[in-house]
Amino acid sequence: MCEGRISGRYGMGKVWIIGIAGGSASGKSTIVRRLRDYFGEDIGFVSHDSYYKAHDDLTYEERCKLNYDHPNALETERMVEDIRRLKAGFEIECPVYDFAAHNRSKETARVEPRKVVIVEGIMILENQRLRELMDLKVYVDADADERITRRLIRDMKERGRSAESVVNQYIATVKPMHEKYVEPTKKYADIIIPRGGHNELAIRMLIEYLKVVMASED
Amino acid sequence: MCEGRISGRYGMGKVWIIGIAGGSASGKSTIVRRLRDYFGEDIGFVSHDSYYKAHDDLTYEERCKLNYDHPNALETERMVEDIRRLKAGFEIECPVYDFAAHNRSKETARVEPRKVVIVEGIMILENQRLRELMDLKVYVDADADERITRRLIRDMKERGRSAESVVNQYIATVKPMHEKYVEPTKKYADIIIPRGGHNELAIRMLIEYLKVVMASED
Repeated sequence: MCEGRISGRYGMGKVWIIGIAGGSASGKSTIVRRLRDYFGEDIGFVSHDSYYKAHDDLTYEERCKLNYDHPNALETERMVEDIRRLKAGFEIECPVYDFAAHNRSKETARVEPRKVVIVEGIMILENQRLRELMDLKVYVDADADERITRRLIRDMKERGRSAESVVNQYIATVKPMHEKYVEPTKKYADIIIPRGGHNELAIRMLIEYLKVVMASED
Repeated sequence: MCEGRISGRYGMGKVWIIGIAGGSASGKSTIVRRLRDYFGEDIGFVSHDSYYKAHDDLTYEERCKLNYDHPNALETERMVEDIRRLKAGFEIECPVYDFAAHNRSKETARVEPRKVVIVEGIMILENQRLRELMDLKVYVDADADERITRRLIRDMKERGRSAESVVNQYIATVKPMHEKYVEPTKKYADIIIPRGGHNELAIRMLIEYLKVVMASED
């Protein structure tokens, strides 16, 4: 990890960490995109997915079989450290995950502190130390049937997967891990957004609140 | 019902209807109180409870045995009509319910249109016509065990009821009606507020959003 430096832009002011959690295909990315479209450069972004562990010790076939929906698949302690650095006004070198290779890439991505930094991921509310760093915790909710059908279409179209493979993975790990590690974290949320990314009013409320945060002297 | 007149204050602007739903003792009243404390005269308030049906045909003992947690216990159509009038800029004569007598009182209470009018009640999201009049639908959520214990303490302290009577009513009607007519309406909400009235951040978000509404030219 890099040493970092006090950011000229936000180094002296508070960095607000906004957690956006919710199940697979619940609409998290849509909401994050809407916020980034609105606030542009004023908003930073760190995805929990970037912290999937490196598995250079395993073959590709072995890596394919790992359970990526369990908290242990992620190096959350490094993420906690990184978010803490961002909050303190330092830039970070965020790991980059290579989804095609199912492994962490050798590259890193520099992330600078911003007045508001969004932390996104299905299990970000599962880790207490991570939760404690957040100034606002949002849980994006959507019915399980809508989530799996959206995921099915997305993974078939964008990742060239077969319907069977998506459904099998869903039943084997996505669903049970969701029920064990994602759904129960809803109770830590400050607000819950139902109907995921289609909920125009909730997105507007979030934007209005972040406008107040952006304008604050804190 | 009175004829009403165009209100001088808000007659020409939009009246925003904010629905606040949620189970018994979920924290709805706390949130409503916080909003009214903040916005004072600028905010109006109509409770679904005021529309409990008149039962002059029944004895007190018979009225005690009615199921007050079923949608049919309420004259929601009159409320729909009243909210429609408020939205159109007219004042209304809201019925007044006498909880001690378990019957509608002979009095009415005048409610004037305001820029924002809160409509509160456990089943306000159950009626489609009522929902369609709302500009923002909030569901205040709290775990069932926290709701019943809060209700128990409140009803024993404030209404002089025995623990047995509160628990019996809870098991007989409050719980099954909640599961049938309240909980399922959560999906109509624009935002869900977990941890009810203790959720400081969600209340602040709601206030910030209503400040924007209040300032809007709509």
